[in-house]
Amino acid sequence: MTGKPRLASIIEALPSTVPFVGPEAQERQLGFNFKARIGANENVFGPSPKAIRAMQNAVPDVWQYGDPENYDLKNALAAHHGIAPENIMVGEGIDGLLGYVARMMIEPGSAVITSKGAYPTFNYHVAASGGNLLTVPYRQDREDLEALIAMARSENSKLIYFANPDNPMGTWWSADELISVISTLPDDVLLCLDEAYIELAPENTAPPVDTDRPNVLRFRTFSKAYGMAGGRVGYVMGEAQMIKNFDKIRNHFGMCRVSQVGALAALQDQDYLTQVFSQVNQSRNRIKDIAEKNNLSAIDSAANFVAIDCGRDGDFAMSLLSELTSQGIFIRMPGVAPQNRCIRVSAGTEKDLDLFEEALPVALEKLRRNPA
Amino acid sequence: MTGKPRLASIIEALPSTVPFVGPEAQERQLGFNFKARIGANENVFGPSPKAIRAMQNAVPDVWQYGDPENYDLKNALAAHHGIAPENIMVGEGIDGLLGYVARMMIEPGSAVITSKGAYPTFNYHVAASGGNLLTVPYRQDREDLEALIAMARSENSKLIYFANPDNPMGTWWSADELISVISTLPDDVLLCLDEAYIELAPENTAPPVDTDRPNVLRFRTFSKAYGMAGGRVGYVMGEAQMIKNFDKIRNHFGMCRVSQVGALAALQDQDYLTQVFSQVNQSRNRIKDIAEKNNLSAIDSAANFVAIDCGRDGDFAMSLLSELTSQGIFIRMPGVAPQNRCIRVSAGTEKDLDLFEEALPVALEKLRRNPA
Repeated sequence: MTGKPRLASIIEALPSTVPFVGPEAQERQLGFNFKARIGANENVFGPSPKAIRAMQNAVPDVWQYGDPENYDLKNALAAHHGIAPENIMVGEGIDGLLGYVARMMIEPGSAVITSKGAYPTFNYHVAASGGNLLTVPYRQDREDLEALIAMARSENSKLIYFANPDNPMGTWWSADELISVISTLPDDVLLCLDEAYIELAPENTAPPVDTDRPNVLRFRTFSKAYGMAGGRVGYVMGEAQMIKNFDKIRNHFGMCRVSQVGALAALQDQDYLTQVFSQVNQSRNRIKDIAEKNNLSAIDSAANFVAIDCGRDGDFAMSLLSELTSQGIFIRMPGVAPQNRCIRVSAGTEKDLDLFEEALPVALEKLRRNPA
Repeated sequence: MTGKPRLASIIEALPSTVPFVGPEAQERQLGFNFKARIGANENVFGPSPKAIRAMQNAVPDVWQYGDPENYDLKNALAAHHGIAPENIMVGEGIDGLLGYVARMMIEPGSAVITSKGAYPTFNYHVAASGGNLLTVPYRQDREDLEALIAMARSENSKLIYFANPDNPMGTWWSADELISVISTLPDDVLLCLDEAYIELAPENTAPPVDTDRPNVLRFRTFSKAYGMAGGRVGYVMGEAQMIKNFDKIRNHFGMCRVSQVGALAALQDQDYLTQVFSQVNQSRNRIKDIAEKNNLSAIDSAANFVAIDCGRDGDFAMSLLSELTSQGIFIRMPGVAPQNRCIRVSAGTEKDLDLFEEALPVALEKLRRNPA
């Protein structure tokens, strides 16, 4: 053959990068299985037993496509949030929904604003749409919403991404602080507010959903507090016309039917959610204790993970992560300085954290004896 | 507010169309539930009982993201097809994979070739990427692959979509016929060969997968013969470099973990697939019999549905469909003339087809007495 298929030029130019390597791929490479899976901010406490039963009961119906309107789930979410079903779109996790937003908003060269070292999957979607990603540094380990908005103005950007609580640092702004800054957001700039971890944050972290405001979209998920990362159910809330735009580009029949059922059952078990909150909180405290016992400091977190400041540079944190990996502990770390002085440990079971507690001093000692 | 978010111009201009209205939405509108769900080419015989058990057992692990590399499933598929894992990409159903291809290939104004009245979801993805969709008429109720390739040449198109067996007509070309026509495909034109129904077609319908040829991609799914439409598992096979391009744009963590497990178990139960083939075949024959008893003719089908030629125009077929709908029978019909003289009935259980057999003459009689 002489010629070959002619890809879109934006895609042709992209590297085949992968936002994250999964723990299974690491295990295949390492040749052993992780003893503690506390790296991907999954919820080790799992979904509500009622959601598990509902999903198991739904499995025989998997021959049917899921309802493309997500009617039952959307209506339950609307009631839960005190908004209309028209203000909600259900999609294939926040990752999937962010991909839709990128396609909805970005044209080749569009300036898109995010924090330096924030969620890589958003950046990945921006790249595939040909956007021009511009970044604002973190300020004291928090995303700097004021600076993000200022840059959107100065760069004539139409799209900002911001997570609250933040990933990978776990830091957050209060609802009042957010409301105040969002009031300065230009009408024609869309803020994607990623609240993946919001159910695990202190009260008064989430502002009320303002369905009159077309330029803020609020992203939520069943992957974190609700314990269904493998189910791929997220949703986005906002003004009705903005929400309707997702119907132009989303995969209408893209939802897993079993997951739809599971998400509905999980939503209906708020008592279980309260219990998870308490388990995550205990786990965060214990991770902090473990860090401090090892003369490291933990950054306060409103999410289901804790960034541990290792007090040195990115190379040191990376070496520590490698040592922990080789001891069977799956964790991750921020990719960009200065946040990459940290390792990021997800909330774990007692056993997970026993293993981490055991492994951390061994790893640190090893690095002390063999500095990189 | 004065301004509003500035959407990408292609998306701004799109209508919020929905490729298909789901049966659940119809039920909500009608105020009753369908008695027979034989409209969406779902597999009423369901997945292998082994796949059901495997999925039920996997549900408690849904707190974990699925393996983004789909390693186990991909390797099993590679062994099944006698190709390398590098020649396969797993994705969120063929719908999801076609969306990726549209983004991979199409630039605003790119000519894209399909048959007039073929799969609407492909057209939907083309529109969202700003492609210029050009259509070739069916010839004797079959997609006209020669004419599609000719139009790709004359219009300098880089992308052709073609389904074998075809949906909505169920007609097909043999492997030999396909190989012969594909040999004339220009090197720089990509053919998306949608084989959603291939496992239900006669032997010698699928050409061998030629992994040396970058310009043919073969799309398969667990939604049809394998009975897992609600699980959202598809895959695409082709030359390794072309396949690798999906890594630039796909949702790496987009697969439902439970569905990954289910697809693997379904693939491993080929005996069950043989049984489904026989059930679908019986069902096709019975739909044909029912049609003929009512003086309608059935078009031979290699898929899990039968297009029944109602012998009149699209309005008549639409009226017949409405009558059947009001009797609780969910079916669909082709959207475009001349195929829209047909109604399309999916393979059903004995009971489904009993209901259809009962409803069809009543509906026809009603139309005879009250012509539109």
